[in-house]
Amino acid sequence: MNPSFGSRLRSALDEHGPLCVGIDPHEALLDAWDLPQSAEGVRAFGLTVVEAAAGRAGVVKPQVSFFERFGSRGFAALEDVMSAARSAGLLVVADAKRGDIGTTMAGYAQAWLEPGAPLEADALTISPYLGGGSLTEAITRALPVGKGVFVLAATSNPEGAAVQQARVAAEPAGPADETVALRVTRDVTALDAAGPALRAMDPSVRALGSVGLVVGATIDRAAFALDDDTLRTVPLLAPGFGAQGAAPGDLRSRFGTLAGNVLASESRSILSAGPDRIAATIEERAARYQEVMGG
Amino acid sequence: MNPSFGSRLRSALDEHGPLCVGIDPHEALLDAWDLPQSAEGVRAFGLTVVEAAAGRAGVVKPQVSFFERFGSRGFAALEDVMSAARSAGLLVVADAKRGDIGTTMAGYAQAWLEPGAPLEADALTISPYLGGGSLTEAITRALPVGKGVFVLAATSNPEGAAVQQARVAAEPAGPADETVALRVTRDVTALDAAGPALRAMDPSVRALGSVGLVVGATIDRAAFALDDDTLRTVPLLAPGFGAQGAAPGDLRSRFGTLAGNVLASESRSILSAGPDRIAATIEERAARYQEVMGG
Repeated sequence: MNPSFGSRLRSALDEHGPLCVGIDPHEALLDAWDLPQSAEGVRAFGLTVVEAAAGRAGVVKPQVSFFERFGSRGFAALEDVMSAARSAGLLVVADAKRGDIGTTMAGYAQAWLEPGAPLEADALTISPYLGGGSLTEAITRALPVGKGVFVLAATSNPEGAAVQQARVAAEPAGPADETVALRVTRDVTALDAAGPALRAMDPSVRALGSVGLVVGATIDRAAFALDDDTLRTVPLLAPGFGAQGAAPGDLRSRFGTLAGNVLASESRSILSAGPDRIAATIEERAARYQEVMGG
Repeated sequence: MNPSFGSRLRSALDEHGPLCVGIDPHEALLDAWDLPQSAEGVRAFGLTVVEAAAGRAGVVKPQVSFFERFGSRGFAALEDVMSAARSAGLLVVADAKRGDIGTTMAGYAQAWLEPGAPLEADALTISPYLGGGSLTEAITRALPVGKGVFVLAATSNPEGAAVQQARVAAEPAGPADETVALRVTRDVTALDAAGPALRAMDPSVRALGSVGLVVGATIDRAAFALDDDTLRTVPLLAPGFGAQGAAPGDLRSRFGTLAGNVLASESRSILSAGPDRIAATIEERAARYQEVMGG
């Protein structure tokens, strides 16, 4: 039996701390790195980040959009980057925010989470506008083969609140008048068959499930009704660290008892160091997070 | 200046009627068509559908997930299929349901809606879990170059209602306590700069904007609060025809005065005819829709 994504993530967090290094080769960064606006440019960019992150961080997160803009050749570059990362012992979270229903959603799981697939990652970000339950086919395929997902739940962009804080009419078995973010969270975490066993463990074990959430670092979690008990064993991918405003020192104040579940994602703050300084920057940032976490 | 996507879609609807042919090479259909489960299989499948649709329908809709599962080689196949379709005079709606924010969302527009991009389509489906406003970068890039989008609004899968019918707290300038689907609709259609001029035209012109919505054929539109006036100049991509339950004859009863804005998407009902019968099936289905529409 494969070790679960949650257990692999726990090991990575224990060994390297919470830093997740974004691989975001957008136009301005390619220019700043003196790389061409092409598939070759994003490949070179990604491979440099992977080499710098290997041994210094536990997780990398390629932003698929920036590879996708070069079509099939961009995806070939992404395959090389993700394969290099996994060979170097990094966990790879493909940030693709895919979302659909039924067999179509299953196709996205086959693309990103099937062992041996060209675009094989360790986890995929997915989007629940079609309802948390619409993601079932992807989640139930991913977990048994040791893969994970991070479902968009409560994001820090201001436009997100209208959807994510909207109120769902009460269900007979559910809380009264819950937020969309909470309803999605309940729906998708219920698909992790290991959930009840993980929650029954002593909290000191810090067990993690394999269905995670994307939760912005700078949000007011209470506005989304996402309380600590609901999230106790849920991995949290938290964009918003670094250039977007949150500092390593904020990890404990913002996430409290959940701080140990957090993957703190930084992109621009690290990538803007440029190819010559990126390894040192990752090392320095990773050390600061580990300090904060008492590692 | 480029003709707008909305005007190109109006011409296609006028010439060929509302049928939109899905290109969904999922596992079971590849088997049924005696094609390999590979990039070569989905390429052959897609090219056959394009050849059958050319001259018989106005629009095709490749389901990106089924190509994506073969990684970069699957995307190379999709490039070939979309390029063949556009060369044959078909409008191509890439059904990718992408959704992100800022420069990342712009990257998806570059990938699918930039003239000359390897994956160039005429329109892209996009997903608003991060809020309608999060899609701004894609929409404002797409429209000036004659491209369009279909934003997920009100879908027919049962899990969708929890998110899409949830209630957004009232805004000072907006309707009281609106649904997520309506709020998203207001946010994204406001990004079509041509909107006010189109709405001022005589209804007999049947002008269409370039920001469309995905609205399930079988939904109860009232439950999502999407009224006829809000949608009067909005293109509607309606999955749910064919195998999923709605028949050509339902177009007028379900969409009323909006029937002329609808792209009726069928996939399985057409594709299951197999490679030898698909051209005849498209011809027959297209004729039935045209009959219903009085064409």
